[in-house]
Amino acid sequence: MSTSQALWDDSADLAAAALAHPFVRGVADGTLPREAFAGYVAQDAFFLESFARAYALALAHSPDRDGVEAFADLIAGVREELRLHASYARQWGIELSTVQPAPATLAYTDFLLATAAIGGVGLTCAAMTPCMRLYAHLGQSLATTHTSTVYREWIDTYADPGFEALASTLERLLDVHADNVGAARTAYRRAMRLEVAFFDAALDRSGLDGTQQS
Amino acid sequence: MSTSQALWDDSADLAAAALAHPFVRGVADGTLPREAFAGYVAQDAFFLESFARAYALALAHSPDRDGVEAFADLIAGVREELRLHASYARQWGIELSTVQPAPATLAYTDFLLATAAIGGVGLTCAAMTPCMRLYAHLGQSLATTHTSTVYREWIDTYADPGFEALASTLERLLDVHADNVGAARTAYRRAMRLEVAFFDAALDRSGLDGTQQS
Amino acid sequence: MSTSQALWDDSADLAAAALAHPFVRGVADGTLPREAFAGYVAQDAFFLESFARAYALALAHSPDRDGVEAFADLIAGVREELRLHASYARQWGIELSTVQPAPATLAYTDFLLATAAIGGVGLTCAAMTPCMRLYAHLGQSLATTHTSTVYREWIDTYADPGFEALASTLERLLDVHADNVGAARTAYRRAMRLEVAFFDAALDRSGLDGTQQS
Amino acid sequence: MSTSQALWDDSADLAAAALAHPFVRGVADGTLPREAFAGYVAQDAFFLESFARAYALALAHSPDRDGVEAFADLIAGVREELRLHASYARQWGIELSTVQPAPATLAYTDFLLATAAIGGVGLTCAAMTPCMRLYAHLGQSLATTHTSTVYREWIDTYADPGFEALASTLERLLDVHADNVGAARTAYRRAMRLEVAFFDAALDRSGLDGTQQS
Repeated sequence: MSTSQALWDDSADLAAAALAHPFVRGVADGTLPREAFAGYVAQDAFFLESFARAYALALAHSPDRDGVEAFADLIAGVREELRLHASYARQWGIELSTVQPAPATLAYTDFLLATAAIGGVGLTCAAMTPCMRLYAHLGQSLATTHTSTVYREWIDTYADPGFEALASTLERLLDVHADNVGAARTAYRRAMRLEVAFFDAALDRSGLDGTQQS
Repeated sequence: MSTSQALWDDSADLAAAALAHPFVRGVADGTLPREAFAGYVAQDAFFLESFARAYALALAHSPDRDGVEAFADLIAGVREELRLHASYARQWGIELSTVQPAPATLAYTDFLLATAAIGGVGLTCAAMTPCMRLYAHLGQSLATTHTSTVYREWIDTYADPGFEALASTLERLLDVHADNVGAARTAYRRAMRLEVAFFDAALDRSGLDGTQQS
Repeated sequence: MSTSQALWDDSADLAAAALAHPFVRGVADGTLPREAFAGYVAQDAFFLESFARAYALALAHSPDRDGVEAFADLIAGVREELRLHASYARQWGIELSTVQPAPATLAYTDFLLATAAIGGVGLTCAAMTPCMRLYAHLGQSLATTHTSTVYREWIDTYADPGFEALASTLERLLDVHADNVGAARTAYRRAMRLEVAFFDAALDRSGLDGTQQS
Repeated sequence: MSTSQALWDDSADLAAAALAHPFVRGVADGTLPREAFAGYVAQDAFFLESFARAYALALAHSPDRDGVEAFADLIAGVREELRLHASYARQWGIELSTVQPAPATLAYTDFLLATAAIGGVGLTCAAMTPCMRLYAHLGQSLATTHTSTVYREWIDTYADPGFEALASTLERLLDVHADNVGAARTAYRRAMRLEVAFFDAALDRSGLDGTQQS
């Protein structure tokens, strides 16, 4: 079994928790309050900017041309997601440029940036794969089970075969570069937990912005 | 007023919270359970290794010889602290090499490493100064007010004029390099909050190791 | 006058030397031996991989979303150039994957990577702009003056408005981020000299590969 | 045989070339013009600052406490060397703060910084070991064969057991971390050639400063 498959299987508990999360259920049946979704989109736009930076650090540290090309593809994929967020922001009057990152967002972005800056390409792939594989899983699951079209564009984005291809690209890089499987597992599970905490925080917030401490 | 003084004054609430923290009171009057202190030492040893890495990134990115020399002094200072921790570990049978970082520890080290890797020297100084200035403050305060000598070596370490000199060195670098005061303030307060959360976590743990989720 | 315009004007001597270089003249009139061009393409493919890494480091260190987006565009532009090189490689039987970098190539890539890793976004833009602006200049000049179509695809690539747009994007970033103009000038001229030396080396080599010392 | 020993043996030709170099012979017999030595010291001070930065990047990227401690020792060693240079500068009226790096100096520092930023700890050790092992070799050789005491302080510095210990520390790290021996060999030989070129440049210069192109 590939490392990426083993790590995903190993986190089946957290994948299930994410799929059953009230935030995700609310996306599926359309009951998620628009404000909660708007706040999530604002935080996710902040998150994705750091996600792109982490991919860029991995690109810079890649030992070969294949890695350079693959991480460039993945950066291009993040920009597609950011365009989706900008589209939501325009529709719903969310001001993305002034969003204050919530604690759950910063915990995740700091983890990704610290890992990508210091940890090497293999560990970086382990830290970044959960976001891709989990969202492909959520998108594909909700594409067949959702009962409302309120958040259809979001579901379609992550159910798209193009997104699946990006997730697979990153898993392939993980399989190639993760030579320390124990460390990779620790990073992978940590990212999975941070994903669930990101949904928790999205529900906890009442407004569009994170209620950051000052 | 210097930037470093302004940022310290701006965080007087958090400095007061740290000085009044049950963990710090327990160090002052000797009532802190040895297990809680041992657990703190183990987490702090993990933390300090990342602190040294963050200083090293700042050294590498310093634009001039002065910065290279000053950050090398600061790295040497961290090693002194680590020797203190190793001494405690030997006395009290703490196994530092296998310590699992607690969530509060990782939140802090990820923040420092992400900032040092991406944020530039000025922001890195802003993120790192609280740890130095706060501990100099705690050490100097407790040196005159403690009522027990149980944790005297710890108090003496941070009350030492050599530690004050290192804190001042870092504040000088902060004053020189922090050209974005707003961002510096945000990083400084975040580090101050992470310091208080580090003490919270030290009390919450019952044993020597962090109760990390698996 | 913008910083980017001032730095380009300041290097008019080196821009003229590049335009008058026997390598460039040979591209314009088609007299450049195919082997010399093939060797140049092989070295340039190696160079561009490092160029993409340097852009990625700049993306990671960019202080705002605008920089993240712009450097992602510039990375996408490098990939277009690499596709051109792969096309030449297929046509002419050049083996890009085993190319040994020549000293002139390594001098340039080491300079770019060291600057991008350590020097901050402004200095990185100063080090990278000459490659973009000079090639736009050469392409646009040759597009109106070439007397042979042997190397037309190369000329068309760099004469293309899309390439001009990328050069302008990088110059805009240079203008925004280069706060130390003296250091920026030093980096800019150094890159211009490395460009000319790259053409020198392309003529000095007799075969497809760099005559690297072993 | 250890990797470090194999790489040193593999570069015996370049080690011999360095020992027989007119610059080194002039240090041994005291015939090296003071201006040439002063110019060398000025370039070496610039070089050592980058050497310290490269060690700092290796410290930051080290996967364990042992690496953090060892690279901190090596940084402390560089500072000892810089104090020697400052002592020469005071004696002989060399202005270190305004020295312009010569091309041979920049070629070496860019190589080290690019490798340390991008290449991982093992490759960084391979790039940095030659400077340490070669100077230990030169110092120890000249300590027994020199016929003049003009440059005795320089000889004593590199003949010192403390310097040998630092060289051995770095070789141990190289042995631990260099998992790609082919890439390590390429980096090691490149550094050895850059060492010889550094001596070449020291003789070529007539004055205290590098004859940098403007």
